[in-house]
Amino acid sequence: MSDYLVIPRQQHDDLVIAAYQSRGYDAAEAAEGAKLAAEAARHGIRTHHALKALHLDHLFGSATGGCVPSAEIEVLPSRFPASEIWNANKKLGQSVAYRAIERGIELADQYGIAQISVDNAFHYLWGGGYVMEAAERGYLAYTNCTSTLAEVVPFGGKFPTLGTNPHSWGMPTMAASGFPLVIDWATSTVAMGRVQALKREGKSLPPGAAVDKDGNPTTDPHQVSSLLPFGGHKGYGLSLINELMAALIGGSLPTHRGRPVPVAGEKSTSAFYFQIVHPDALNGRDFAFGRSQMENLTAVVRDILGHGNESAMLPGQLEAQARKQSDQHGGLLFTAAEVAEFNEINRELGRLEWDLAQLAVAK
Amino acid sequence: MSDYLVIPRQQHDDLVIAAYQSRGYDAAEAAEGAKLAAEAARHGIRTHHALKALHLDHLFGSATGGCVPSAEIEVLPSRFPASEIWNANKKLGQSVAYRAIERGIELADQYGIAQISVDNAFHYLWGGGYVMEAAERGYLAYTNCTSTLAEVVPFGGKFPTLGTNPHSWGMPTMAASGFPLVIDWATSTVAMGRVQALKREGKSLPPGAAVDKDGNPTTDPHQVSSLLPFGGHKGYGLSLINELMAALIGGSLPTHRGRPVPVAGEKSTSAFYFQIVHPDALNGRDFAFGRSQMENLTAVVRDILGHGNESAMLPGQLEAQARKQSDQHGGLLFTAAEVAEFNEINRELGRLEWDLAQLAVAK
Repeated sequence: MSDYLVIPRQQHDDLVIAAYQSRGYDAAEAAEGAKLAAEAARHGIRTHHALKALHLDHLFGSATGGCVPSAEIEVLPSRFPASEIWNANKKLGQSVAYRAIERGIELADQYGIAQISVDNAFHYLWGGGYVMEAAERGYLAYTNCTSTLAEVVPFGGKFPTLGTNPHSWGMPTMAASGFPLVIDWATSTVAMGRVQALKREGKSLPPGAAVDKDGNPTTDPHQVSSLLPFGGHKGYGLSLINELMAALIGGSLPTHRGRPVPVAGEKSTSAFYFQIVHPDALNGRDFAFGRSQMENLTAVVRDILGHGNESAMLPGQLEAQARKQSDQHGGLLFTAAEVAEFNEINRELGRLEWDLAQLAVAK
Repeated sequence: MSDYLVIPRQQHDDLVIAAYQSRGYDAAEAAEGAKLAAEAARHGIRTHHALKALHLDHLFGSATGGCVPSAEIEVLPSRFPASEIWNANKKLGQSVAYRAIERGIELADQYGIAQISVDNAFHYLWGGGYVMEAAERGYLAYTNCTSTLAEVVPFGGKFPTLGTNPHSWGMPTMAASGFPLVIDWATSTVAMGRVQALKREGKSLPPGAAVDKDGNPTTDPHQVSSLLPFGGHKGYGLSLINELMAALIGGSLPTHRGRPVPVAGEKSTSAFYFQIVHPDALNGRDFAFGRSQMENLTAVVRDILGHGNESAMLPGQLEAQARKQSDQHGGLLFTAAEVAEFNEINRELGRLEWDLAQLAVAK
C-alpha cells in the first residue's frame, strides 16, 4: 500500500467540527458529523470521510437549502409503540441517523424489534457506520435510504428512475469473528464515481453495469449515461424496496429527488428507514451441544469459513482490518493529497495548517 | 404457451388434503398444505406446487422424520411484546408459515412492526406465497429461511457451506399496480434444479453461477459440484443473513442441515424468520400535492415505470398475470404430464382418477 499520514483523531475532529459550525450547524450536529467522518476514515471508507461529507454539504446541503443547520427533528404522534415516525426537517443526516439508532435500541430493548422512519431527510453518507455501531453494541441493525439522484435504470427499462439506493445490515458477531459483520452496498453494480475513475484510467466497466443514452448496455465509461442494478432483476427488486418504503414514508417522485429547485409541488428530499432487533427476541434456547446463542453463532461462522473456505472473508472484515491499522497508528490515515485538501479547509476557516513534517507516516 | 388442463380448485384441494392426511397430517395442516400448493399453482410457481410439496415431504419430511405430522407449535415465553419465538417441533412448514403471518399481522396492528422467529422448522416451500398474502391484506412483509442443504460456496471460498437461502419481501401495492409487489428469490445465481435442466437440454450455465469439485468456476452443467451466490459479494452477504439469523434462532451448523440422520449432537433443522410492518407506522403524513399514502405510492410506481420504462416489470407481475389467467379459467393450470402425476397419487390413495376427457383445456 502507499504511505499514509496519521492525523490524530482529536485534530481531525476539531477541524471538521469547526467546518460544520462555520456553516451554521450547532455543536451537537457538528460533533455527530465529525464522528461519522472519523469512523469512516478509521474503517477505510475513503469514499465517505470528511472531505466527501463537507463537499456534499457544499453542493447539496447547507449552501443550497437541501440541508438545514439546527433543524429540529419532529417526532410525529403514532399509535404504534415499537415504531417512531420522524420529520427530520432536512437536519444533518448523520445527526438524524445516530439519533435514530439510539432511539431504535431503546425501543428494541423494550419490544424486541423497533423501527424509525424518517421523512424530509438529507444524505446520511455511510449507512454501514450506523448499523456497525448498533451491531458492536450487540444488536441486529438495518437501514436503507433513497439516494439523492435517480441514476439507475429499472431492469428491462431504459431511463434512470431509481437511486443507487443502498442497504446496510449489521450483525452482532463480535464474539464470533472479533468484529461486527456489516453488509453495506449500493444496489447499482458500480457507483457513478467508479465510472468517472474508470474513464480517467482508460479502463472498461464490467458487463451489466451501465447503459448509454439510448438505454443500450455499454462497457465504455465515455458512453455511460445511467447505471444498472446489480444481479439483474434481483438487485432491481432490492432497489425498489428503498423507493417504495420512501414512498410510504413521504418521499416524492424519484426523478424529482435531489433537485436544488424542486418542481412546484413535488418534494426533493430523501427518506431513511432504520430497524433494530434485540438478539434475545430471536433466541429459541435450543442450541446444539447446549451452546449459548453467541457460541452457536460462532460455531456457524466457523463452519461457513471452514472446509477449505479460509480465504473467504466476512462482510465488514476489510473495515475491521482498516480500523485495527488506524488504531495501531493512533489516528486516522489520509494520503498527502487528502491532507492538502484538509489544509485548504484550514485556510478557508483561518485556522493553522497541519504541519506535514510533524505528522507520523503509516507505511 | 403450451396447453394446460384446468383442474377446479376444489378437486385439487381434495386430493392434496387426502394425500397429506394419508401421511398422518391433521385436517388443519392438510388444508394449509393444500392452500399453499394451490396458490403456488395459481400464480404460476411451477417449482413449488403440490407435486413438489408432496415429493419433498416424501424425501425429507414425514417419511424420514424431518417433518412431524400433528406436531404442536410451542410459543416460548418472551419479555418482548412485539416479538414471538416459536419452536415448530418440525411441524409442516406451510402451516407454521401461514400461522406466523397471521400472528405477525395481529402484532403489527398493535406495535407497528412485529417479528416471529421459528426454530426446528421444516421447509415452507414458497416464501413469496406468505408475504404475498400479507401484502394483499395491506402490510409490508418479509421472510427468510435457511435452505435444507448447503449447496452454495461463500464468495472467495471453495466448499459449499451455505444454503440457497431465499429472501421474500411483499409490499402493499394493490392500489399502485393492481397486485402486491413480491420480491422472492434464492441467493444463488441459479438453483440446482436449473443445473439439472440445463444438463438435460445440453446447455451451458451463465458465468459466475457454479463451481466444479475443486472450487473452480464452470459453465458446464456436467462439471457442477456447487453453486455460487448471485452478484458476487453482495449475494453472498444476503445468504449470510439467513445463516446468521438462523444461528441466533437455533439452527445448527449449515453443513449438517437437512441430513436424515444428523451427526450426534448437531441439529439438522432449518429456521424461519418473519416480519410484518403496518404501513401506517411509517406514514410521515407530508406527501406532495396532499396525496394520501397509497396515492403517493402509486405516483412513485408510475414515475419508476414511466419515462420510456413501460417495458420494465414489477416483481410479482408475472405471478399476477398467471393468477389472472388461472382465475379466468376457473381453476389451476397443469400440464398433461403433471395431471398424470396427480393421477398416480389418486391411484396410490385408492381414489378415482381425474378424467382427462372431462377437463377444460387452457390455450
